Amino acid sequence: MQILSDTDGMALALEWAAKGMYITAPNPRIGCVIVRDGVVIGAGHTQPAGQAHAEVQALRDAAARGNDVRGATAYVTLEPCSHHGRTPPCSDALVRAGLGRVVAAMVDPNPLVAGRGLAQLAAAGIAVESGILAEQAHELNIGFFTRMRHGRPWVRLKTAASLDGATALDGGESQWITGAEARADGHAWRARAGAILTGIGTVKVDDPQLTVRGIEAPGAAAPLQPRRVIVDSRLDIDLDARILQGAPCWIVAAVADAAKEAALRAAGHEIVMLPNAHGKVDLPALMRELGRREINELHVEAGSKLNASLLREGCIDELLVYLAPSLIGPGQGMFALPPLARLADKVALRFHDVARVGADLRILARTGPSPTTNLY
Amino acid sequence: MQILSDTDGMALALEWAAKGMYITAPNPRIGCVIVRDGVVIGAGHTQPAGQAHAEVQALRDAAARGNDVRGATAYVTLEPCSHHGRTPPCSDALVRAGLGRVVAAMVDPNPLVAGRGLAQLAAAGIAVESGILAEQAHELNIGFFTRMRHGRPWVRLKTAASLDGATALDGGESQWITGAEARADGHAWRARAGAILTGIGTVKVDDPQLTVRGIEAPGAAAPLQPRRVIVDSRLDIDLDARILQGAPCWIVAAVADAAKEAALRAAGHEIVMLPNAHGKVDLPALMRELGRREINELHVEAGSKLNASLLREGCIDELLVYLAPSLIGPGQGMFALPPLARLADKVALRFHDVARVGADLRILARTGPSPTTNLY
Repeated sequence: MQILSDTDGMALALEWAAKGMYITAPNPRIGCVIVRDGVVIGAGHTQPAGQAHAEVQALRDAAARGNDVRGATAYVTLEPCSHHGRTPPCSDALVRAGLGRVVAAMVDPNPLVAGRGLAQLAAAGIAVESGILAEQAHELNIGFFTRMRHGRPWVRLKTAASLDGATALDGGESQWITGAEARADGHAWRARAGAILTGIGTVKVDDPQLTVRGIEAPGAAAPLQPRRVIVDSRLDIDLDARILQGAPCWIVAAVADAAKEAALRAAGHEIVMLPNAHGKVDLPALMRELGRREINELHVEAGSKLNASLLREGCIDELLVYLAPSLIGPGQGMFALPPLARLADKVALRFHDVARVGADLRILARTGPSPTTNLY
Repeated sequence: MQILSDTDGMALALEWAAKGMYITAPNPRIGCVIVRDGVVIGAGHTQPAGQAHAEVQALRDAAARGNDVRGATAYVTLEPCSHHGRTPPCSDALVRAGLGRVVAAMVDPNPLVAGRGLAQLAAAGIAVESGILAEQAHELNIGFFTRMRHGRPWVRLKTAASLDGATALDGGESQWITGAEARADGHAWRARAGAILTGIGTVKVDDPQLTVRGIEAPGAAAPLQPRRVIVDSRLDIDLDARILQGAPCWIVAAVADAAKEAALRAAGHEIVMLPNAHGKVDLPALMRELGRREINELHVEAGSKLNASLLREGCIDELLVYLAPSLIGPGQGMFALPPLARLADKVALRFHDVARVGADLRILARTGPSPTTNLY
């Protein structure tokens, strides 16, 4: 592949970044390609946490192929790190390797980096540039950047409904509103999240596993399985629930119950007590707690009551809505919202993306304004 | 513009056809371009009913520009007519003009034509072909073809709702759920219909005019105004209703009321009595009646009760749904359907087209299977 422009180089770096989608958490998914005279001489992406970052992978790839990187241009989807984290700084590695130019899609909002990576490269005589395909690079790691800026995950709420907005019959029958392709697509969105959140209502009615199935991670044995998080104010969960049978869960409660807590801990699960003034789980505090626990993207699959509570308490950044080509009529809605007094009080969203997935539609709608943060 | 292929030629003919969108009813909107050596030497589209068809317009255009059409190729979006209708047959005109080749997007399903137009051209020694961009040509006149085949209009039901499916608050407040662009787009869909159908409930609550506003028709003073049709079983309509103040309406009733009928007739409106066995309007019979009255596309803007009746009685071909980026919670739905006993009883649709219109989404969903009729 011939790289004819900085945009070409960055587009390829973004493709490499996406290869790390399901394996890098809590680190961002970064890609790096090294180019000389329009030819790619090395490429790589972030490895699992504690292992090599994208820049080091690309340098190793170039070395393994016998390519000399001195004077070449590196395209990186995020400013190279300049601090010692789980690995040594990438900016050092780029300087030592003798790169001639480094193009970053965007500067790193992490206050430990925040322009210092590029400054350090420039100080070493490397030409630096940033702001190429910055929006795409930001989207790829929107959760990581949200956590860096706000100390909480990017929260994406998934729901599936008929065109007239019903998720299930009032009697509760809800299986198969959307098609197989939409369900597979939903697993890909689960897989990119650090954690999946549900509520005790959904556990009782649907008894889901909330694991990632059918998703492959290039170059890795399997995608990371997101942490399952259950909002269960009064610890009503049945120890036989399917969600409790696999990897450890975080069970978020508001009312202590020593015996139940002990039983859940004995089964390997963790209890997180976060009561609010009403004896329910303090949802905004939970979001901050998940941020502290390095969850970048939180995927919510819950019932209409928890969905509505999260929405009303300002915890939702994005709705991932699958609409099926059907009409159901009266049934359960996506959000158990109270009746509005005036239309002006509606919840305002912004359509971000629409796609057809099999016979269904996938709509991404966001609650906040378009990001105006300077990414360059 | 250079015409390099039959597809190029037909694509341009379709553009010309679309120029007649709002003026040709009850005739189909047809376009014709005449090409020699890759150069367009004449073009035209169907004029208002009783005036020239597309082929004659294109021949006149070529003549006016001093171009010789002998031996040239004509691209027509529908097989040229071979019968005397409101105008003489177009196939005769093409033969007389000495065209060398005629390419039709599709054959005419009108039983009076049905391949005879092309056969007549072939018999005169003109090379003929059909089936180029046939699906697009069919879409452009889907109402005309539905009427030719089934004796009833193509019925398109327009509604606007929040992402969670509410069209209004339960208290009735409904204005401005969607934005200005979606409302303007809705007027374009009204304008392509031969009639707009509503119900007495909507007339009482919203008192709409249901006229076309803000739409321009190229080459005409104004678009044709669709006939307004009101389903009003018991003739409850108020003579002061705004919809009755302009052009004559058709008021479809089920229960006679001599005094009210006389008053409505005196105001210029027509009463159409179509009772079913339950004392309501026989909606499928109404569709057949509208077909007899040469309505190609029927645009429905009604409330959730009439919407549901039309849907349940199999009268709807297509939903035109504008979804706003908002959540409203409990409110009025698009269709007042009864609760389902089983999800399998849901109304199955098929998404046909999705577009963003301003901040809103426009979804076209169809009730029938993909057309499998041979268009060639």
